[in-house]
Amino acid sequence: MNASTLGTAVPQVTARAKVLGRARYAGDVKVAGMLHGKVLRSPYPHARIVRIDTAAARALPGVKAVLTGADAPRAMWGVHHKERRILAEGVVRFAGEEVAAVAAATEEIARDALDLIEVEYEELPAILTVEEALDEEAPGVHPGRGNVSHRIDFHIGDVAAGFARADLVYEATYSTHAQYPGYLEPMGTVAAIDADGRLQVWTSTQSVFQARMRLAAALEMPVSRIRVMQATTGGGFGGKIVEDANSLIAGLLAIKTGKPVRLVNNRLEDFLACCSSVPERITLKLGMTRDGIIVAKDVRIVAECGAYSGLSAEVMHVTAMRSDNMHRLENVRSNAMLVYTNNPPHGAFRGFGGSQMQFALNSHIHMMAETLGLDPADIHKRNAHEAGDTSVHGWKIGSTGLRECIDQATEALAWKEKRARRQAGAARSGVKARGVGMAAAMHVSGNRTIGNWDGSTVVLKVNEDGRVIVHSGECDMGQGAMTMLAQIVAHELNIPLAHVHVAPPDTDVSPYAIGTLASRVTIAAGNAAILAGRKAREALIGLAAQKLELPAEDLEIADGFIRSKLHPDKQAGIADIAKLHIWRHDGEGLQVSATWDAKTVMHGDVHGNIAPAHSYAAQAVEVEVDTETGQVEILDSYVSDDCGKAFNLLAVHGQSNGAAVQAMGWVLYEQLQLENGRLANGNFADYTMPTADAVPMLRSGIVESIDPNGPYGAKGASECAILPGAPAIANAVYDAVGVRIAELPITPEKVLAGLRALRERGGSHA
Amino acid sequence: MNASTLGTAVPQVTARAKVLGRARYAGDVKVAGMLHGKVLRSPYPHARIVRIDTAAARALPGVKAVLTGADAPRAMWGVHHKERRILAEGVVRFAGEEVAAVAAATEEIARDALDLIEVEYEELPAILTVEEALDEEAPGVHPGRGNVSHRIDFHIGDVAAGFARADLVYEATYSTHAQYPGYLEPMGTVAAIDADGRLQVWTSTQSVFQARMRLAAALEMPVSRIRVMQATTGGGFGGKIVEDANSLIAGLLAIKTGKPVRLVNNRLEDFLACCSSVPERITLKLGMTRDGIIVAKDVRIVAECGAYSGLSAEVMHVTAMRSDNMHRLENVRSNAMLVYTNNPPHGAFRGFGGSQMQFALNSHIHMMAETLGLDPADIHKRNAHEAGDTSVHGWKIGSTGLRECIDQATEALAWKEKRARRQAGAARSGVKARGVGMAAAMHVSGNRTIGNWDGSTVVLKVNEDGRVIVHSGECDMGQGAMTMLAQIVAHELNIPLAHVHVAPPDTDVSPYAIGTLASRVTIAAGNAAILAGRKAREALIGLAAQKLELPAEDLEIADGFIRSKLHPDKQAGIADIAKLHIWRHDGEGLQVSATWDAKTVMHGDVHGNIAPAHSYAAQAVEVEVDTETGQVEILDSYVSDDCGKAFNLLAVHGQSNGAAVQAMGWVLYEQLQLENGRLANGNFADYTMPTADAVPMLRSGIVESIDPNGPYGAKGASECAILPGAPAIANAVYDAVGVRIAELPITPEKVLAGLRALRERGGSHA
Repeated sequence: MNASTLGTAVPQVTARAKVLGRARYAGDVKVAGMLHGKVLRSPYPHARIVRIDTAAARALPGVKAVLTGADAPRAMWGVHHKERRILAEGVVRFAGEEVAAVAAATEEIARDALDLIEVEYEELPAILTVEEALDEEAPGVHPGRGNVSHRIDFHIGDVAAGFARADLVYEATYSTHAQYPGYLEPMGTVAAIDADGRLQVWTSTQSVFQARMRLAAALEMPVSRIRVMQATTGGGFGGKIVEDANSLIAGLLAIKTGKPVRLVNNRLEDFLACCSSVPERITLKLGMTRDGIIVAKDVRIVAECGAYSGLSAEVMHVTAMRSDNMHRLENVRSNAMLVYTNNPPHGAFRGFGGSQMQFALNSHIHMMAETLGLDPADIHKRNAHEAGDTSVHGWKIGSTGLRECIDQATEALAWKEKRARRQAGAARSGVKARGVGMAAAMHVSGNRTIGNWDGSTVVLKVNEDGRVIVHSGECDMGQGAMTMLAQIVAHELNIPLAHVHVAPPDTDVSPYAIGTLASRVTIAAGNAAILAGRKAREALIGLAAQKLELPAEDLEIADGFIRSKLHPDKQAGIADIAKLHIWRHDGEGLQVSATWDAKTVMHGDVHGNIAPAHSYAAQAVEVEVDTETGQVEILDSYVSDDCGKAFNLLAVHGQSNGAAVQAMGWVLYEQLQLENGRLANGNFADYTMPTADAVPMLRSGIVESIDPNGPYGAKGASECAILPGAPAIANAVYDAVGVRIAELPITPEKVLAGLRALRERGGSHA
Repeated sequence: MNASTLGTAVPQVTARAKVLGRARYAGDVKVAGMLHGKVLRSPYPHARIVRIDTAAARALPGVKAVLTGADAPRAMWGVHHKERRILAEGVVRFAGEEVAAVAAATEEIARDALDLIEVEYEELPAILTVEEALDEEAPGVHPGRGNVSHRIDFHIGDVAAGFARADLVYEATYSTHAQYPGYLEPMGTVAAIDADGRLQVWTSTQSVFQARMRLAAALEMPVSRIRVMQATTGGGFGGKIVEDANSLIAGLLAIKTGKPVRLVNNRLEDFLACCSSVPERITLKLGMTRDGIIVAKDVRIVAECGAYSGLSAEVMHVTAMRSDNMHRLENVRSNAMLVYTNNPPHGAFRGFGGSQMQFALNSHIHMMAETLGLDPADIHKRNAHEAGDTSVHGWKIGSTGLRECIDQATEALAWKEKRARRQAGAARSGVKARGVGMAAAMHVSGNRTIGNWDGSTVVLKVNEDGRVIVHSGECDMGQGAMTMLAQIVAHELNIPLAHVHVAPPDTDVSPYAIGTLASRVTIAAGNAAILAGRKAREALIGLAAQKLELPAEDLEIADGFIRSKLHPDKQAGIADIAKLHIWRHDGEGLQVSATWDAKTVMHGDVHGNIAPAHSYAAQAVEVEVDTETGQVEILDSYVSDDCGKAFNLLAVHGQSNGAAVQAMGWVLYEQLQLENGRLANGNFADYTMPTADAVPMLRSGIVESIDPNGPYGAKGASECAILPGAPAIANAVYDAVGVRIAELPITPEKVLAGLRALRERGGSHA
């Protein structure tokens, strides 16, 4: 019997523990003698710390440690630039920056102790906009350095010549805002010193090995003196890769007190401590032939990283480059700069810079299509790469379902019919105007830019009962990595899914892994899991062949046995063979390891085949705009994800729908309200993420463009699906009422203002 | 620089944690919501359980579960025979057998609950001696089965012909008593159900994988649904291999309550629950030529396993066979039977049956030497095997330092001089008589009888800082396995010992391992560690050779670098190479695995080359016997251990001295007082293990007979060193006062009785 679940809809292997409330998130970790940590944050976006008096806090009964920047190691941490201290010393650069940390017997005492810490600040002028930051007179956010944190400049082909042969050249500026990752589990860590004096860390993370590396750097310890274990993680969305200080502060408190310390953000603290997505202003100039072929692209990007750059430079790279690889472009130019301000830091976020550019690009294509009398869907399809192509940046396109995604999404919305009806004026009913919009996007599955490795290792232990333990260092934050690995191993060994246990990542135990980012885990760890599964299968079948005196080619694994295909009565139990693998001369426990690395090759830092495969997505939406209130309601949405082979239909649809909602939140509802650099709405009442009643019944489809590099043809699912949502909605709003919102979010006020401007200009949607 | 510590005296890598009180023993494991378990035990050696009423116990506030045999799985557990239930049902077979178990909010409540359990017993006639057990009319301890649990019969060569050509044939019967293992940490377990419903067990054990297997069998679960982690273990001495029910009961309580449960024996409970060593009555008949060559050996053994046989059958095998391999014997016969009684179970104990036979054999040789006018040391040396020999049971002797051990120990005691003085009557001073005794012994290093594997696997992870994590499933109970592994890996990589971290055994993580028994870990895991260390070294040097563009043969690891021997300025940091191993095309974290299996081959169950190497020991002691009180005082003791290459002088001497003390305790002080089958002295006040003032300044020596199969020539240390103590002391007592105590322990009463008998016979020591 075929026990495989690949391609079916199965509940995630982590689901039961979560539903039953048994999953152990970082905040659930309880260690004997554990203290509770709290962090004092700067109320000012920019200030000099004149004096900190911790005496009263230290004197509070139950307080075990009160640490300030003076107590923290001298090391600086950060990804691109080492520019941040665990606790600020001398100066704070954003409202929310960590100034002091307390460990106390209870969380209440720790909170009370914060109130007793006296900090005398001398406020400094704060730079709160990129315009201020780029002013020649502006002081540096980081002294001695200009406010440009990073620049990108490239020019491939001949952009001027491209524009010269264009029939239509269109330029516009788009502005995107920051989005809070909105995971349900705030960042949290329990840190403890073990019996050997090593630092043990249970934390909510997307990468235990990057967390370890960062802890080692910030705490000035050898990595081997640190053990990072992933606790069950309730969402990451990019925010739990490497940019949070939570685990660093917990680690410092544990070292200083010698006691276990629990440091779990409450929601406000998480809003203040997290990295929201990078706000970018994108000026896009495209040249097209009259039949919609893009002949030149010129883009200027000003991105804001806030006070510390984190992963923002890498995010901006993606904004500048990734969408170029979706279309057959020849002439592209990009000029991008990342700017420091005294706002809270920005950084990695699901889509990793793709959302910003796809908003601009898809809005742009919609406008140009209109001018040229074309269907924007057709423009995407006409320009789309085909499998076998190499893109302008050297990306080898092994598979693409972009056209199928566009067709699937638009057909599901009756795109052509609705556009026709709208053009006939039928989409209007009183003050309500309906419109449809679409957008398309691409994403990577993997990313060869960290060192020169884009691989993953999977270790399988086959126990004496024929069941398997899988070790991988890649993190599951809810997206389904553990289920994916279990499905693959079960498939290769043809054993029930329940017979595979995936151990959570642990730096002392798991094979080295980059972690969960760049939609790389299914392709990298999935391929490694196939290799490891096959190694284990070969070992089992080889030994059974010896025992049964049959050729290995005649044997298969099925129903708990290794049996002859020709003589099905000749068989041995998997468990018996697993035992025999140990209990024989020259035996050993059956444990195999396999590493897969992408075959990609980069030429220099940015040019080259960065990823082994690429996902594509398209989305079509129908909205209704209330022309009296400016309110936009999404009536229907269909997102189509080309994730290659879909292993788990439940997981892919869940991820696609989740991505669609997160995009809807960004474009319509969510906005971090900064008032003089201070966050005013750091809670779920005021920061309005979409709830179930704010979105329509979500629909999603899967396109399986089997990728030659993917495990069974699979690619990364779901990250791509967040990309087309914002422009599809913006385009639908434009379709409905003729108002082009180029500055996100699309608020009723902006819609009304747009309608007013239209009326003043005598436009059609009066 | 050579960073190796091999052959020096280094503190164990576990020492710091223990000295600072940070080591986490099972009893120190604290899990949130943990309940406390207690066990109700039978007060009768044999009884029918008529009725158990747990209602009152269950009603006690704070009690979460009260379990009896009816609540336990139907499965039987045990090593040789599956004959034991987790909790007794229907009948109890020894006083101390587990009848009910309670889990409650506190240990105090659990204890109170025990008092509220009403058990109505119907006492049954108890079989308390092997004589009663072997009576033809005796009822079976286990119904439907005779009271002989196991038999061994072998006859190799021609024993009758051997005796026929002997100049001296001597027969005597020796009796040995049970010894409590006396580890400082009683058995303890914390068991919990994890988020996925798997059973997690932290326990004090010598083998996590055997513990897992036993839990799976007894709890009727697949092994893969169980994770066993070794907590720091405070001594095992054989008692923590597979025979204790502690972890099974803790596991059952955790499953039934769904909560973590801590079950830690107090000292009395441990006395009642543990397996003490196997008492044996040995009738030994030896034939010798006049120059002391042993020409025939015939032995009859009646061993008592108590109510459940555990590992007693295997212990009796060792008694019957092992000492035959110490001498060049040709004609040996053995008839042994293991007998059930209603006494508490016996089983594995340091020396594993060797102590019993070596007591008989060495006592015997001393007596025959006297008759023949020979030095017993010379008899051992004349009969001793040489390297290259194959013994009567097919053991291939790769190395032996037996003669050197005998010389070292006897010379240290001035053996010849003291014997000469005694023979001249000079050892007498008033009522005090001095005498010297010696004994010799051999032991295995490894044991190919579990399945057909006698190997071990070691996994090394090299971290990005060039430091190493070692994974092995072999347990350290204080004897030094972790230090041994760390020393070997550090030696192979030429890195500081502190740069190697040995992870504690964990069935989810560690490579499969048999566990710590049969002095197998240094030879099996040590060899695997060498292989793994060399693999890691090759990988590092190979990559450095590529990077430095130098031949690998020219490179060495030293001082944190991989550098050219020819051009020492050409070098790369180990950490840089370890990082490069990941961060390159086709990279991966550097993790290697190596398995070593002994090259031994068995022919059938018992005949064949059972172990890859053999340890030897000899001990010489001087005693003073008070002829008025019968008190024996050990004045001097020197034990010489041939452990092959000694890695850690501190550890070997510590183990040798510990073994010597444990032997002294057995022979002079320790005795389990059973009154009608009930233990009367289950505490350290009444069970008198020797304290520091009861032993002389201990002396020990090392003989390094480099074994071709051993890691750098090493063999198992320390287990052999327990074997010669008892007969050396008995021989010294005989030497001092002419009283031959053949029935252990040597109590003052027996000495006085012997002196009285001598006087009555007109003997010399009147």
